[in-house]
Amino acid sequence: MIVKLTRVEVQSRQDLEMIDITEHIERAVAESGVRDGLAWAMTAHTSAGLLVTEGIECLERDVLAHLERLAPKQPPEGSYGYWHNRYLDFDGRLGFNAGDHLKSILGGVNCLFPVENGKLVRGSRQKAYFVEYDGPLARTVFIQVLGNE
Amino acid sequence: MIVKLTRVEVQSRQDLEMIDITEHIERAVAESGVRDGLAWAMTAHTSAGLLVTEGIECLERDVLAHLERLAPKQPPEGSYGYWHNRYLDFDGRLGFNAGDHLKSILGGVNCLFPVENGKLVRGSRQKAYFVEYDGPLARTVFIQVLGNE
Amino acid sequence: MIVKLTRVEVQSRQDLEMIDITEHIERAVAESGVRDGLAWAMTAHTSAGLLVTEGIECLERDVLAHLERLAPKQPPEGSYGYWHNRYLDFDGRLGFNAGDHLKSILGGVNCLFPVENGKLVRGSRQKAYFVEYDGPLARTVFIQVLGNE
Repeated sequence: MIVKLTRVEVQSRQDLEMIDITEHIERAVAESGVRDGLAWAMTAHTSAGLLVTEGIECLERDVLAHLERLAPKQPPEGSYGYWHNRYLDFDGRLGFNAGDHLKSILGGVNCLFPVENGKLVRGSRQKAYFVEYDGPLARTVFIQVLGNE
Repeated sequence: MIVKLTRVEVQSRQDLEMIDITEHIERAVAESGVRDGLAWAMTAHTSAGLLVTEGIECLERDVLAHLERLAPKQPPEGSYGYWHNRYLDFDGRLGFNAGDHLKSILGGVNCLFPVENGKLVRGSRQKAYFVEYDGPLARTVFIQVLGNE
Repeated sequence: MIVKLTRVEVQSRQDLEMIDITEHIERAVAESGVRDGLAWAMTAHTSAGLLVTEGIECLERDVLAHLERLAPKQPPEGSYGYWHNRYLDFDGRLGFNAGDHLKSILGGVNCLFPVENGKLVRGSRQKAYFVEYDGPLARTVFIQVLGNE
């Protein structure tokens, strides 16, 4: 079995941003030499995510606005505050991004696709997105391809 | 390694509907010849999902009602509208299902199970569901089984 | 290909609790003999989950509080009740944990990591958590490692 692990650097430019990484995954598949198998990716970060949805700009904005509504950067009024938003000894700074970790959990941190005849199998509208919840930052995505030659 | 990819057609009959696909995955495992490995499935669509939960009708209704509450078809009052709900050039029609894409992201789009001794391994109450958020429609589910003979 | 499936018992002590299982997954990788491949885990239960986030106690509390806010044990006021919260013939008792099944769906039920040179690959802050939504209970986690020697 071929097993190929690739680390891809992604540079986010905004606080909240969806970055289409479908081509990165397709390139990893092409370079792996795998004919039939599995390709999957995950974020290396806990205030970022990976998800699959339709690749259109208006929907990208809805996804970000919606996750911010469900897991806001400021604790929801009339509810608890965030415990994470306090001084963190090990970090030497204030915690501030509890809502971004929560978005990462809700939206998910990985995606998977079958590989068939050397090609990524996906629905005609499906795109793989890296989702930045706490940018701008330089980020790493792990892409792994496993399968038969 | 055996790698088998199956495309299963699922016909939803309602706008929101949970369809138990556990047997489809178990059949794919039986037909694959895999003794020890991995079986996983994903939706080919961005306004549908896949998830694992207990297989009882009352809970199916709660899951659908709950996801509609968190990601409603109509934009939540007193908040932003949906950007996706506008005229889409490439589609030649109005976008209308932003909330359904959002449900798909929240509920997830795939499920995975180990295969052991030729059988799907799952908790006694776990069922795999295809979840329709924008039906009725004819839908495709990818099921892949990878492993040793 | 090596395929190793391990069942790990986890004992939760509270109703809602996050239990770091990263070491269990790392041990399964070490004992599998896999050098390059995939390690993944899933809960065997429908009122518990698995997720990846930063491993700090304040954030654990935020995750639990937040999922309880999004999918509360008591049906949200001014909205529908839970259909699952009724007498269940097959169980001989009242359904009571609809909100906990919903938390499981929102937070997710599995996690995946690459294995490289015999080590689990993860971001420097990423930890794998078993999440109890309906404890205290004795629980099972499936951990599978697949790959080349």
